[in-house]
Amino acid sequence: MELLDKLKWRYAAKAMNGEKVSQKKIDNIIETARLAPTSSGLQPFEILVITNQEIKEQIKSVSWNQSMITDCSHLLVFAAWDTYTEERINKMFDLVNEVRGFKNEGWEAYRQKLLSFYPQQDPEINFNHAAKQAYIAFSAAIIAAAYEGVDSTPIEGFEPEAVDKILKLREKGLRSCVLLPIGYRDAENDWLVNLPKVRKSTEDLVTEIA
Amino acid sequence: MELLDKLKWRYAAKAMNGEKVSQKKIDNIIETARLAPTSSGLQPFEILVITNQEIKEQIKSVSWNQSMITDCSHLLVFAAWDTYTEERINKMFDLVNEVRGFKNEGWEAYRQKLLSFYPQQDPEINFNHAAKQAYIAFSAAIIAAAYEGVDSTPIEGFEPEAVDKILKLREKGLRSCVLLPIGYRDAENDWLVNLPKVRKSTEDLVTEIA
Repeated sequence: MELLDKLKWRYAAKAMNGEKVSQKKIDNIIETARLAPTSSGLQPFEILVITNQEIKEQIKSVSWNQSMITDCSHLLVFAAWDTYTEERINKMFDLVNEVRGFKNEGWEAYRQKLLSFYPQQDPEINFNHAAKQAYIAFSAAIIAAAYEGVDSTPIEGFEPEAVDKILKLREKGLRSCVLLPIGYRDAENDWLVNLPKVRKSTEDLVTEIA
Repeated sequence: MELLDKLKWRYAAKAMNGEKVSQKKIDNIIETARLAPTSSGLQPFEILVITNQEIKEQIKSVSWNQSMITDCSHLLVFAAWDTYTEERINKMFDLVNEVRGFKNEGWEAYRQKLLSFYPQQDPEINFNHAAKQAYIAFSAAIIAAAYEGVDSTPIEGFEPEAVDKILKLREKGLRSCVLLPIGYRDAENDWLVNLPKVRKSTEDLVTEIA
C-alpha cells in the first residue's frame, strides 16, 4: 500500500529548512482537511494558514521556542468553535439544503434535535467535542502532507490562550487546539530524523473479538 | 491528487451489504491507524476489531439501531485510556529506549516531566486528551479505508457507557470514544449515497495570514 510507505517516511520533523512548499501542495493539504468528516457535518473549526514571519515569531515565543514554527513554510493553526450556537448549527444545515436543493423532513427533525441539545450544553463540553472534530481534519492534513512528500510536525506544546490572543481568535468565537507547521526537514540539524519510528505493537494496540 | 479523488468518493455509508472486507485491506487500515502520530508518542488508546455478530447486535442496540453496525464487515471501536498513569507512561518510554537501543538524557527528562504532570491531573481531562489522540488514529483509519476503496461510517451516536459494559472496557482502564463500521455500501438501500457531499467553502474554513 503506497500510502503506508508514505506514512512510514513521515515523522515529526524537529528542524525545518525554510524552503517554501508549492501552493498546489498546500491547496491539496487544505482540501484534504476540508473534506474530512465531522460530527453531523458541522465542521466546527477553522484553519489559519500563516506565512507572515512576524506572526510566526510571536507564536514561537509562546510555543517553547520550537524552531519549526518559524522555519516552516506554512503554519497551520486548527481553531475549534468555542461552543455550538443556534446560528452556527443553522448555517450548516441551511448550506446542506442549499447545495442539495431540497428540504428533507428527517434532516429538519435532526436540525431541531441538535438545536435543542448543543446550545444548552456547557460550552467547555461543546468546545471539547468541536476540538475532536478539528483533530479529524488535523490528522487528514498530516496524512495529506506525507502523501505530497512534505513534512509536518504536530504540535500541542504551546500556550493556547496566548495564541488565541495573537490571532484574535476569542473575538471570533474560536480557540486554538493544535498547530501544524508544514515545510521541509532540515535533516542535518534534526536529532530525530535518523531514529527509528516507535509504535506499540499491533498485539498491544488491537483486540480482536471474533 | 489521487488521494483526494478517493476522499471525494468516500461518504458515511448509511447502509452496508454484509460483504466481507479482505484481511489484507483490514490490516492496511489498522496499520495506518497504528502509525498515526500522537502526543508524546503515547498512543493512549486501543482498537477493538469486532466481527462477532452477537456482540455487534448488542452494540447496535445501544447505538440507535444503526444497521451498519451489524451489516459491516469489521466494526472498529476506538477506546481511549481513562487516564494517564505512571505505568502507562513508563511502558511507552521504555519501549522507545528498547527499540532505539539507548537511553537519552533529554528523553529521560521529558519522561520525568510527563510523570510529574499527567498522573496528577483530573482523569476526565486526561481522558479528553487521550480521546483526541484516538481521533487522530480514527481519522487515519477512515482515510486508509477510502484509499483501499472500502466504505466506513464514523459513528458518535452511541451510548459510550453501555458499549464500555458490553466490551468490559472499564476493567481495562479504557473508555469507548467512537465507532467505525468498515464494509461495503448497500447503494440501493442508502438514502445518502447519491446526495452531494456538503462542506464549508474554503473561504469559510480558511483564513490566510500572509
